[in-house]
This record gives sequence, C-alpha cells and structure tokens, in this order.
Amino acid sequence: MSTSRTTPWTTFGGDLHLDLTERRAAGAGLRAALEDALREAVQEGRLAPGTRLPSSRALGEDLGIARNTVVEAYGQLTAEGWLSSRQGSGTTVARRAVPSPAVRPTRPQTRRPAARYDLTSGRPDLSLFPRTAWLAAARRALATAPHEALDYSSPLGRLELRQALTHYLARVRGVRTDPDHLLVCTGVTQGLGLLCAALRERGARALAVEEYGLPPQHAIVRAAGLTTVPVPLDADGARVDRLDARAGAVLLTPAHQYPTGAALSAERRAEAVRWAREQDRYVIEDDYDGEFRYDRQPLGAMQALDPERVVYAGTSAKSLAPGLRLAWLALPDALVEPVARLKALADTMSPVLDQLTLAELITSGTHDRHVRRCRLHYRRRRDQLVAALAEHAPHVRVTGIAAGLHAVLQLPPGSTPEPELLARARQAGLSLNGLSWHRAPALPPADTPPALVIGYATPPEHTFPAAVRALCELLREA
Amino acid sequence: MSTSRTTPWTTFGGDLHLDLTERRAAGAGLRAALEDALREAVQEGRLAPGTRLPSSRALGEDLGIARNTVVEAYGQLTAEGWLSSRQGSGTTVARRAVPSPAVRPTRPQTRRPAARYDLTSGRPDLSLFPRTAWLAAARRALATAPHEALDYSSPLGRLELRQALTHYLARVRGVRTDPDHLLVCTGVTQGLGLLCAALRERGARALAVEEYGLPPQHAIVRAAGLTTVPVPLDADGARVDRLDARAGAVLLTPAHQYPTGAALSAERRAEAVRWAREQDRYVIEDDYDGEFRYDRQPLGAMQALDPERVVYAGTSAKSLAPGLRLAWLALPDALVEPVARLKALADTMSPVLDQLTLAELITSGTHDRHVRRCRLHYRRRRDQLVAALAEHAPHVRVTGIAAGLHAVLQLPPGSTPEPELLARARQAGLSLNGLSWHRAPALPPADTPPALVIGYATPPEHTFPAAVRALCELLREA
Repeated sequence: MSTSRTTPWTTFGGDLHLDLTERRAAGAGLRAALEDALREAVQEGRLAPGTRLPSSRALGEDLGIARNTVVEAYGQLTAEGWLSSRQGSGTTVARRAVPSPAVRPTRPQTRRPAARYDLTSGRPDLSLFPRTAWLAAARRALATAPHEALDYSSPLGRLELRQALTHYLARVRGVRTDPDHLLVCTGVTQGLGLLCAALRERGARALAVEEYGLPPQHAIVRAAGLTTVPVPLDADGARVDRLDARAGAVLLTPAHQYPTGAALSAERRAEAVRWAREQDRYVIEDDYDGEFRYDRQPLGAMQALDPERVVYAGTSAKSLAPGLRLAWLALPDALVEPVARLKALADTMSPVLDQLTLAELITSGTHDRHVRRCRLHYRRRRDQLVAALAEHAPHVRVTGIAAGLHAVLQLPPGSTPEPELLARARQAGLSLNGLSWHRAPALPPADTPPALVIGYATPPEHTFPAAVRALCELLREA
Repeated sequence: MSTSRTTPWTTFGGDLHLDLTERRAAGAGLRAALEDALREAVQEGRLAPGTRLPSSRALGEDLGIARNTVVEAYGQLTAEGWLSSRQGSGTTVARRAVPSPAVRPTRPQTRRPAARYDLTSGRPDLSLFPRTAWLAAARRALATAPHEALDYSSPLGRLELRQALTHYLARVRGVRTDPDHLLVCTGVTQGLGLLCAALRERGARALAVEEYGLPPQHAIVRAAGLTTVPVPLDADGARVDRLDARAGAVLLTPAHQYPTGAALSAERRAEAVRWAREQDRYVIEDDYDGEFRYDRQPLGAMQALDPERVVYAGTSAKSLAPGLRLAWLALPDALVEPVARLKALADTMSPVLDQLTLAELITSGTHDRHVRRCRLHYRRRRDQLVAALAEHAPHVRVTGIAAGLHAVLQLPPGSTPEPELLARARQAGLSLNGLSWHRAPALPPADTPPALVIGYATPPEHTFPAAVRALCELLREA
C-alpha cells in the first residue's frame, strides 16, 4: 500500500471497526454491506446504546465510499429502529433493548459474602485513603517527571521512589539500604513469589514459616515449588533455635508476629541472623504493619542487623491501600540480580505513575502526616475495642495489641469450640477468622482453647461501635 | 503492655526510629544514649541533610523522657555540627557532607546507552502522553469510586475497566468478549507469562512463535517452561498450515506482524482457528498496535472468529505509555479459571488507580480523541520517513508501514552486511535493531539481504528530522 492512498481513518468522532470486505466478497452491494455491518455491530452490542456514530462525511471518507451511501444506510437503520437521529445531535445507537455483548452466560462474581460487619484482619480503613493529597501529589509528580519516566525502565522500579524509600525506611524503620538494593514490586505477594523463585534457583527446596501466618502466603510459597516447614512460636516470637536444616530461608514477622502479635526478641533476632550467616541462608522480614506501633519502644527492622542476610519486605497496603499493590524489597547484594531478572520476566517492572506519586507523597512530608493521622485513628479504635471487651467479655484475653491493625482474642479453656463460634458469628453478621485458619500447612490442630483474630481497622467509622457490640454479644455467651 | 501506658508515638512531626534500649542496656545515660542514637542516624544518612527534627517536647513525649534531656542532646549535636538550629525553623539536620546511606558500592545502572537518536521499535512518542487529561480522569474516577475500589478485589481486575474495555474492544477491534472473560494484567509481558503457565498446566510443552518476533517474549515463554517452535512467514503472515504438532498454542500478531508488518490473510486466520479447534489448542493474538492502522481497510481482531479458541491480548503501551504496565487478555471460558488463579498467586491483582482512570478516560471519549491525535502524528512521521528514504536512499525497500509505529527497511542484495551496518549506525549516534535480532530462537540465520527495523515514534519531535537525516546518510552508503 502506498502512503498517498491512505485516507484519514483518523477523522472519526470515535473509532469504529467495520469490515465490509467479506460482505462485498459475498456479493453484497456497498450500501447493503454497510447496513449489515452496522446492524450486526449494534445487535452484538459492539456499538452500545447511546453511542454517537461518526458523521456520514467522516465515515464515508474513512471507508472510501460516497457520503450519500452512508446517509442512506443510516436512514435505513434509523427506520428499522437500530439507530436514532435527532436534529443537532447527529446519529446515535438507539436506546432500546439490545442484547448485551456477553456471548456467554455471566459468571458468578467471586466476592466476599456481604457480612454486616467485616472484622477479618489485614486491611486498613479505606475511608482514610488520602484521595485529595494523593491526586495533588500525582499532579506535582507528573508536572516535573521527564518523558522517559513513562517509558520502560529498570526492573527495580523508578529511581525517584527508590531514593525516597531509602531515606524513609532508614528514618522510620532503621532499614539500611540504598536505591540499588531496593526493588519495587506489585504487593508483597509478588515480592515473596520472586524471592521464593530466586531461592529455588540457588537450590532451596523449603521455606521455614511461622507456626501461624497468612495462608495466601503459604500458597505462594508452594506455587513457587517450595515446601513450607513450620517454626514454633512462643511469647518471644518464632523459636528460631528450632529452624529446620532443610529451609533455604525463614519468613518472619519480627515487629509484630502475624497474627499472634508477639515481638521477636533481640536474642532471637541475633540468633536468626547468625543461622543465616553460618548456613548461607536468608531471613525474609515481612514488615507488614511496621508503621503502626502504639507504644514507646518502636522496634526497628531486624534487617539493620545484617543487610546481606535479611531481606526487608514493606508495603503501602496498610498505610495507604491494598489496591495500590505497591510494595518493596530491600535486597542483599547477592539477591539483586536474580530477583530483578525474575521481576523483568514477570512484568518488566511495576507501573510507574503510582511510584512517582508515592515518592512525591513521601518527600513532601504528606505521607508522614497521613500515617500519623491513621495511627491516632487506629489506636482509638483499639482502645474502644479493648475497653468494650474488658467491660462486656472480661473472660476474654486480648493480646497482640501493641501494634498493627488487629488483635487476638483468646477464650478460656472450655469455651465454645472455634467452628461453632465462627458459625454463630456468621449468623450475627460478623465476618472474622479463627486463629486456626492461620495455622501453617501440615501442622496438626493446636491443642489450645479457641481464639479469634479481629481486624479492627476495616469497618467504616459509623458501623464500628455496632460491630464491637455484636462481637461482645457473641463473646459474652461463648 | 496495657493501653493506658502508651504515649503518642503519634505526636511526631515526622516519624523517626531511635532505639535507646541497647545503649541504655550497655550503661549509657539517657542523654548520652539519645545523642549517640541521633548522631548515628545522621552519620549513616538515615536522617538526610535538611530533615526537620521533631520538637524537643514531641520527641520527649514520644520517648518518655524529659523534654530538657532532648534540648540538651540537640544542643550538643548542634555544637558538634551534626544539627543546625535556627530561630523559627526548629532543629534540622545540618546540610554538610555526610556519608550517603549507601552501605555498598553503587551498582552500574542498567540503562540503554545514550544514543543521540533512538530508532529502536516498540515504544510510542512519550511526549504525547495526555498528562492533563489523565490527571483529570484520575480526579473524576477517584471522586466517584467507592471505598471498596481501593481494596483487594477480583484477580480479573476492576469491573469498571473490564466493562469499559468490553465496549471499547468490541467497537474498535471487533473483539467479542464480556467483563467476566477479561483479565487486566501488568503488561502483555505478564499476560503472556500467565498464559504460558496455564498452557503448561494443561500439558503443553511448546509454543509456536512466528519466525520473527520479540526476543523478550521468547524469553518469557522459555522461563515458563515451554520451548518455542518457529512458524515460517511470508507476505500473507504466518504459515499456519505448517504449525508444529507439539505446540499447545500459537502466538500470532495477525493485524501487523511484528516486526515484518504483514497482515495475516483471512484464509490463514480461518485455518489457524480450525487447527485450534480440531487439535484442542489455542491461538494467542498479540494485538500490540491495533489502534494504529493508517489505511482504509482496518483489520478486526481474529479473536472474533472464535472467542473460545483465540486469546486476545491488548495493551495501553503504544496508545498511552509502556510505564503504565496496563494490558488485558480476553480469555476463552476454559482459561478464565487457571489464568485468574495464576494471576492471584503472582500479584493478587493489578493496581487499581490506573485501571479506574483508564476506564474513565475510555468512557468519557477522551481516549478516542487521544488515539486519533496520536494516529495523525505517527502517520505524519511515517510519511516523512518514507519520503526521505525515497529521495535519499531509493534503493531501500520500505515495508510494513500500513500500520503501527515501525517500518522494515530492506536493503538490496550485496549491501553492507547487517553487523557492520549496525556498527556504523552506533558510530553515527543511531540506536536501532537489525531484523535478525528478532529471529526466533534455534533458527539458523536467514539467507536474506540485511534489513533494519525502524521505530519512528520514539524520538522527540524536535530531533526527528535529524534522526531521519542520519538514517538516510547511513543507508546512502550501505
């Protein structure tokens, strides 16, 4: 095709794909072919009701046919009721019942059953997301970003964010890293998957996980071809003196064990790092709620003990929103190449706009103010929960509340068994998980009284008091 | 820890992690421990120059120590030159040479060598990215999105975008799908990886790929555990009559073969679909530049021939920007479950904010206008390139220019061999690829004259004429 013959496909009011070739080949006249193609597009729902069609001039030019042929075809389809033509507003697709574009039966949506009160853990109060501040930061970031910021770039992520995170993580969590050892990933989900794949490349076949943890993480580990080997827990966190020799690394939640809430003691931290050094293994530190600590002794990241043996994993899922899918790994030097290579194969790099925006949010100080506001909010909720339980269900022991967005409620021996308790909760419109749901795979059920994991951040503010009341009601008779 | 003893860690002007416990345990006094911790934070770069410290009152409250102790510590460090104290602006970290937080030598950045003119193919003109319209759409989207839009949701992606894409792809590309069969992924890179993993689960061990293609895609296929088996090309596109029996699917670029530019003929399309049906295989249609067709006969997606046998893969990388990492798959019913499950394991779901924004951009009509503008821009560039070559290098045959953002320049037999030509190009400041770079793995070198693949979209507008001149110069003597 020579260039001189091209006609502006670009004169369209909106793009429209109409194929007349086949119909013409089958012997149809131009007008009939056009009518037929348009009718089919409306019938199939490819042209949605209300859609404005290109002008007859534009469509004629585009298809290389006489304008009048288009006018006639539009007229015919208007007469048939497919199109609607009104003075001044051009020709549009008629707003009548047309089949939806669904060519197959609609699938059932996979979403959570709508409980009245969501007390499952793991998510923040989404009404706190700083929409205005985020948009303002996005505007500032896009105003100054060079064009190449919108291009493919390093699999590690945008340098702007890695620089901002280097300082932020050092300041807030004591992490020792630099932009060359930070990798931005699409949630800790992806970060953990990449790490497991990298560990498997270097020969690992198992990952040690805490006795209680996050079942979706266990699934990720197994999908990466590693088995999970459990580490027992006690009041000082994971029993790292009992680390399995088969494990290529251990996944820990040192600041606030998930979900039991213990903080890993200084001795245990040192011991885990010693194990990693001596056995040429790694520690993966999942700092999932590191910003939310309510007491006077904030626990820094254990990564600082040995940045070459501890991978630090952080996320914006709690401080901003899970939907951002914006998380990061501070990597030992030896893992940068394999993890970055696997990231490039997985999705080239993480999306850039949110990265630029978060970098701006952090460096402008807005992020700090936002986290502070959230911390006050969650502490107040925690205090409300604790006070209500002390008053209405004093037999329940509340633990793990020095940090984070959830609490563990331990019931006394002889209480209603967990499955029955959960069934009653469902009936009362409460969505929550038992502690046993969090138990690592391949472990026998624990011989302990029932316990619930309560996420107190998620319910909207106006339903929180009612949610707490419903919970107390449930526990009073448990 | 009882709640009543918690002190506002939240009164900070900015978050700061200071661990006094260890220093106190080692026998240091409170003030000395604080001074030491602050000094170390500045030395290590955890507190960057210019950072404003919390007020003495706030820090004292936070650490549970007397305000005066903080005042004294600040005074000492100011005297030592680490901090700077000025009336009215509080205490800040001194702007003096302090070691960077880098604890390890800086890695060399892996970026493209800075050629003067980038004529490699595969990327749009990033200066066209509609920053203002994008931000306006983001604002509108965030103004109406419910809080749950920021939460975890379906691995398929946000319903808003899948609904918008259903109509958009039907209208513009003739794709027959619905929101339940669309999956939003982080670039076609991820989509292809997920598809390969799903195919492998159902027993496939090989994927058929076109004789020339995109080497990074070949790497993704192999990383997913599939071998690539090549399909020969001719002027009508892939020779699908020669599909290898081992292939579980074939990856095609029907609208505009990448990079040679041929359109897959109607007969070949029908034949590929027949093969997929009869052999229980799939066709993956990579519609990487489907919006950019400059002639009168736009080619619809071949997915419409059989939505249960053809996976349609589309992307915003050319129409908006690669950095968005926003792409989609229209899946056959049988592949929805496995691909969605693998997506959930990979990264739960794609980030939501860009999805909401793109949905708004499409439904508001802004996206159509933007694409139209880009199409005019690229057509003009293509015409400039073709005209310049016709004048200054008439011996070069220009092909594949009916669509897309690149052209193939075929040199006559006996021309300078490709490696030498590329070396000369580098010397002239031109970054470009030879056709042979695109050859599928495990194929012997083609016995054809040298050819170059020229991406004409990437150079900034003001350098484009010079880039074309440099290219003509190179080819004149080739």
